[in-house]
Amino acid sequence: MGLVMINEKYQVRMKVNGEHYLTVWMEGQTVCLIDQNALPFNFSVYRSKTYMETCHAIRSMIVRGAGAIGAAAGYAMAQAFMEAPDDIDFIQKARLTIENTRPTAQNLFYAVQRVYEAGQTSTQNALTEAGEIARENIDDGRKIGEYGNELIPEKARLETHCNAGWLAFVDYGSALSPIYIAKEKGKDIFVYVDETRPRAQGARLTAWELKNEKIPHAIIPDNAGAHLMQQGKIDMIIVGADRIAANGDVANKIGTLEKAIAAKTFGIPFYVAAPVSTIDLDCPDGASITIEERSEEEVHYQTGLSDKGEIHKVMVSNPGSPAFNPAFDVTPASYVSAIITNRGIIKPEKEAIKSLMNMVT
Amino acid sequence: MGLVMINEKYQVRMKVNGEHYLTVWMEGQTVCLIDQNALPFNFSVYRSKTYMETCHAIRSMIVRGAGAIGAAAGYAMAQAFMEAPDDIDFIQKARLTIENTRPTAQNLFYAVQRVYEAGQTSTQNALTEAGEIARENIDDGRKIGEYGNELIPEKARLETHCNAGWLAFVDYGSALSPIYIAKEKGKDIFVYVDETRPRAQGARLTAWELKNEKIPHAIIPDNAGAHLMQQGKIDMIIVGADRIAANGDVANKIGTLEKAIAAKTFGIPFYVAAPVSTIDLDCPDGASITIEERSEEEVHYQTGLSDKGEIHKVMVSNPGSPAFNPAFDVTPASYVSAIITNRGIIKPEKEAIKSLMNMVT
Repeated sequence: MGLVMINEKYQVRMKVNGEHYLTVWMEGQTVCLIDQNALPFNFSVYRSKTYMETCHAIRSMIVRGAGAIGAAAGYAMAQAFMEAPDDIDFIQKARLTIENTRPTAQNLFYAVQRVYEAGQTSTQNALTEAGEIARENIDDGRKIGEYGNELIPEKARLETHCNAGWLAFVDYGSALSPIYIAKEKGKDIFVYVDETRPRAQGARLTAWELKNEKIPHAIIPDNAGAHLMQQGKIDMIIVGADRIAANGDVANKIGTLEKAIAAKTFGIPFYVAAPVSTIDLDCPDGASITIEERSEEEVHYQTGLSDKGEIHKVMVSNPGSPAFNPAFDVTPASYVSAIITNRGIIKPEKEAIKSLMNMVT
Repeated sequence: MGLVMINEKYQVRMKVNGEHYLTVWMEGQTVCLIDQNALPFNFSVYRSKTYMETCHAIRSMIVRGAGAIGAAAGYAMAQAFMEAPDDIDFIQKARLTIENTRPTAQNLFYAVQRVYEAGQTSTQNALTEAGEIARENIDDGRKIGEYGNELIPEKARLETHCNAGWLAFVDYGSALSPIYIAKEKGKDIFVYVDETRPRAQGARLTAWELKNEKIPHAIIPDNAGAHLMQQGKIDMIIVGADRIAANGDVANKIGTLEKAIAAKTFGIPFYVAAPVSTIDLDCPDGASITIEERSEEEVHYQTGLSDKGEIHKVMVSNPGSPAFNPAFDVTPASYVSAIITNRGIIKPEKEAIKSLMNMVT
């Protein structure tokens, strides 16, 4: 099984039912993805044989999360080279199709660019580069965890939004990685998990990850954050990022901005954890970031498990009322206490970001 | 039908399927309530023959919303007098039971107190007083609407949280009443409706009300508020209140605080609409308000309509993860631009509140 090979090579940390897993990996020409739409009720692996199928997986959020999207997009680009190594038009079209699946995700563009360039010399190089992106993603997650752990005091009560755990990457994650390392170091911590409507990645994925890792936590409605902060129940907030602009503005899951504003009001540190690949120096500020608007169906419908063990998709709001569903928001740099990266912790400032990007590692 | 009598007497505004309705009314010894747990998928009336059944209706949120809870509690107290007019112990126990159904709702205590006192002279007086509370509630709603309408500019884009519409009162409502009057006056307005997890009173009840009244609106995830404010898409916010302290601090549905903080950050007026009966002069400030914590089931489960037209209750979050569910939060007076009451619009300040309470009307 390809998985085992990857494990031996990459020293995988995360376990599901006692077995080590990555979020995304490749077996031959097939991209394998943990199906995140099936979680938390079913654990299954989606296998896509073509770049188009992988695009479908990204678009339909079978794979989601900045880092995992990046890795999947890299593999999709490699798949395109494998499908038609000599057809420049096909490759070009594939590149555009992959890039258009999720327009806010910086890691997607970064990965596609790298694999596309590597593929100019040979298909094997494209494939190697895609694997390298996944491997770096794992390393980056581990390093973010080690740096971020330094910020977590003993008995810390943290809040996190959406899912920036290992499911959002290839392993470890960004926002949750410091929490995993803190747990590894024996710290006694508690995590408040924002539900993160409409897709509830917090309640469904982050809670699933934390329960797997036996980390004490509670799911809270997105509405409860400011109240808990006001009551002195939150010591720090850590979130991930989908894109970080050159000036330190952060695009992340819708609702991040509300938490950041509330945190500033109550004097609570607000950290953004992300690998350097999330930083886009070509993007001067948050206002330049395209915010993806997703279907109103995501607001109107919820999929869940009945008491009989059946999965039902049900309408949970007034039939016939329109809904509006922006998927991300932009948190101005002034609300971010620090950015935790795989190269260290920096202030969300232009010069610090530039220096970080120029670091030789 | 008792309903028609009430209509003739009280000049009811709201219509469902072409017929006028109140949220709560009495027919003989039976309290009739629009079943708000069945909405928006089914419109039905719950009939409770005893005060205990009415308590169940309040506790299980068949009736909810500050004003409607008050009216239902008043009727429940009157029912207790009708059930055992000469049994002082029974009446005392009933009073405590009713008061313990929803500890954050000021109108509940206010109504129970009034009906209890009226009942000291005769059961008929208790019943008359309960009817009077409902009638005042309707008048108050209309007046809040007329005052509040003055604050709504032509082409205003409003945001509201939870449901403070006619379903939350006996007719008209608090936060939605100014919107109904603005619409009546021919103003072109648009309402962003916060979903309001975990019970989704916005997506289920406010959206249902606005659609009935043909007012343009869109449901948004609770996470989207600050983003829309940042984008300049919200001109004003109006919410209701469950209790207003003597210093102007406001207890309202969980999530209100986040919107208030975001509104202040982006310089958007944040109005609280409530009848004077919501003000509790005995409560010095928000810190003194008991915040009800509700079951974690409300976070874990959602009830909705399948494509086959069946109602299913499904688990929507990770099985086995704990959840935390505070039902209200407290918005400090400093975040409230003004309080819209049935006696006029005031600043959320101690002296202004005191003067308002002492007004002879």
